[in-house]
Amino acid sequence: MTDAITISVDAMGGDHAPRAVIHGAHIALKERRNIRFIFHGREEQIQPLLDEFPALKPASTVRHCENVIAMDEKPSQALRKGKGNSSMWMAIQAVRDGEADVAISGGNTGALMAMATFCLRPMEGISRPGIAAIWPTLRSDIIVLDMGATIGADAKQLVDYAILGSALARSLFDDANPSVGLLNVGTEEVKGLESIKEAGRMLAEASGKGFTYHGFVEGDDIGKGTVDVVVTEGFVGNIALKTAEGTARQVATYLRSALKSTLLSRIGALFATSALNALRRKMDPRTVNGGVFLGLNGIVIKSHGGSDEIGYKSALGLAYEMGRSRLMDKIADTMKRIPAQPEEPVSDTQSEARPA
Amino acid sequence: MTDAITISVDAMGGDHAPRAVIHGAHIALKERRNIRFIFHGREEQIQPLLDEFPALKPASTVRHCENVIAMDEKPSQALRKGKGNSSMWMAIQAVRDGEADVAISGGNTGALMAMATFCLRPMEGISRPGIAAIWPTLRSDIIVLDMGATIGADAKQLVDYAILGSALARSLFDDANPSVGLLNVGTEEVKGLESIKEAGRMLAEASGKGFTYHGFVEGDDIGKGTVDVVVTEGFVGNIALKTAEGTARQVATYLRSALKSTLLSRIGALFATSALNALRRKMDPRTVNGGVFLGLNGIVIKSHGGSDEIGYKSALGLAYEMGRSRLMDKIADTMKRIPAQPEEPVSDTQSEARPA
Repeated sequence: MTDAITISVDAMGGDHAPRAVIHGAHIALKERRNIRFIFHGREEQIQPLLDEFPALKPASTVRHCENVIAMDEKPSQALRKGKGNSSMWMAIQAVRDGEADVAISGGNTGALMAMATFCLRPMEGISRPGIAAIWPTLRSDIIVLDMGATIGADAKQLVDYAILGSALARSLFDDANPSVGLLNVGTEEVKGLESIKEAGRMLAEASGKGFTYHGFVEGDDIGKGTVDVVVTEGFVGNIALKTAEGTARQVATYLRSALKSTLLSRIGALFATSALNALRRKMDPRTVNGGVFLGLNGIVIKSHGGSDEIGYKSALGLAYEMGRSRLMDKIADTMKRIPAQPEEPVSDTQSEARPA
Repeated sequence: MTDAITISVDAMGGDHAPRAVIHGAHIALKERRNIRFIFHGREEQIQPLLDEFPALKPASTVRHCENVIAMDEKPSQALRKGKGNSSMWMAIQAVRDGEADVAISGGNTGALMAMATFCLRPMEGISRPGIAAIWPTLRSDIIVLDMGATIGADAKQLVDYAILGSALARSLFDDANPSVGLLNVGTEEVKGLESIKEAGRMLAEASGKGFTYHGFVEGDDIGKGTVDVVVTEGFVGNIALKTAEGTARQVATYLRSALKSTLLSRIGALFATSALNALRRKMDPRTVNGGVFLGLNGIVIKSHGGSDEIGYKSALGLAYEMGRSRLMDKIADTMKRIPAQPEEPVSDTQSEARPA
């Protein structure tokens, strides 16, 4: 590996692949000169796009492969069919083989997670990988995980997410000591699931070794940016993410229709055009595109399936930052500083009656 | 009971009680003539406020009681201290005794739920009560429950929530056949927790008996208004609600600062004032104030603790609508039509590895 960061790209993943992928890489390269790309996919489709964006050529290698994983393929099926020969697999394998720093795909999330787990294997001491989201808040971007890599998490797994998420925060935000909060239904010590309370005790003990444990946070603390890393189980994380996306879209729709409602409001919107465009950019989900798979022996980024070139550019920029900041080393470093946790899962079946 | 709806009010509950409560009742009465109020609390504080809003007097009864539950009191403590003699308890008891149609309090949610459950008891066939939120969406208001009355729910409890929520939807939205969706991490049949999949099968069978079962919905379907009733377990529901509130606040803050950012945008905002005010009203959480406790032998509404008179007015309007539309009868009716479900809980401990 030279000073340049090499990104291994599934050129065929996503609704607008390979065009949006290659175009996105073109923009990413303009913004950050020292990236190298390895594009995996159908050469006859990729090559003409490189001809279209010739500046990209010297930074790119194309690895032909015929097999492409469909967006609706079941993970098990995709793994059976695509192991060892699909563009998605080959993109991940280049990371395993040390040829690339990070892999990226806009394909089917389930298939990507199955292949990444199979190919890269979980890191020693981590039982299951998590998906981290970079979440814009009123303060700054923060990390929220797990976004649904797995359903259900015991205390040990929540602690793993805290280790992984805080390493990512150190990597991306240049913050040596990010704060970590556990998502719960109340901030009092007594509330919530047994697994979360137990994780809270474990994190309080580990606090200071790569992160500061803040305590419990509630749903509205995400948007406030109360902590740098919000840790939660995958089912809840996925619902929270999609509920927030839905709400942001809802408010944007209200705003659009309000500004169109009267002649005066149309004139007002005209005057405020540049401010409203800035607002639109701020709320543009494409600018924070990418779920980060953490806890495997290598970093894989999932770009949104519907991404256009701007979405890919953002995801590739994210990949670059992770390579540059040596995210994998940062994770390993935190894990060394925190003693191994007990493996027994804490049961959540005795859910107590608990008023809100 | 005459034609008028009688609302039993904990006049002392909430940060701005009793002033905001009495003032809110004054506005609610102006909007809907045939309400009667029973105010429970300290007479020496309530009476001067009734002197201030004399129109309210003929519609009001004041029941003096000295004891007031503090906002930070633990539920068990509140129940021990306040059973039989607090303004909160007395408000609920008037519903139990058939003196009032609905009870309402802006006090401590945990204490209110504990007292309501103890005083009114769960309905026959319902194991645990739920808290329903009225959620504004792009289509219309919808019902989402449980908002955190209990943590964890087995399939039978999720079906109970569907019955309760759809009865509330029929009551409030005059829709004879509301659609019900189960909140999940994907809409495919195979995804999600065992309890949710089992509840899906049970709801598919019960579909048509008071509601139409739509299937699984995801977090962003809430804001879209894909279904009339979204059913979920209390932990997830609470996180979803607070995450959405946080996001709405975040976007509103972005908008405010964008519109103040330049001279042109300030001028634009001036032109668009009335449209932006309409937007603000639309997003005002006070206009949909009130969590509804469902599944007990009587209806209790929790108004937000920080509510001002407008918030109370909305919650009292909600209470009125529930009384007028005979919500309790509607719930009993649905329960009669759906055969009793098996009681064994479906375990969720074998959470499977599931890529998002």
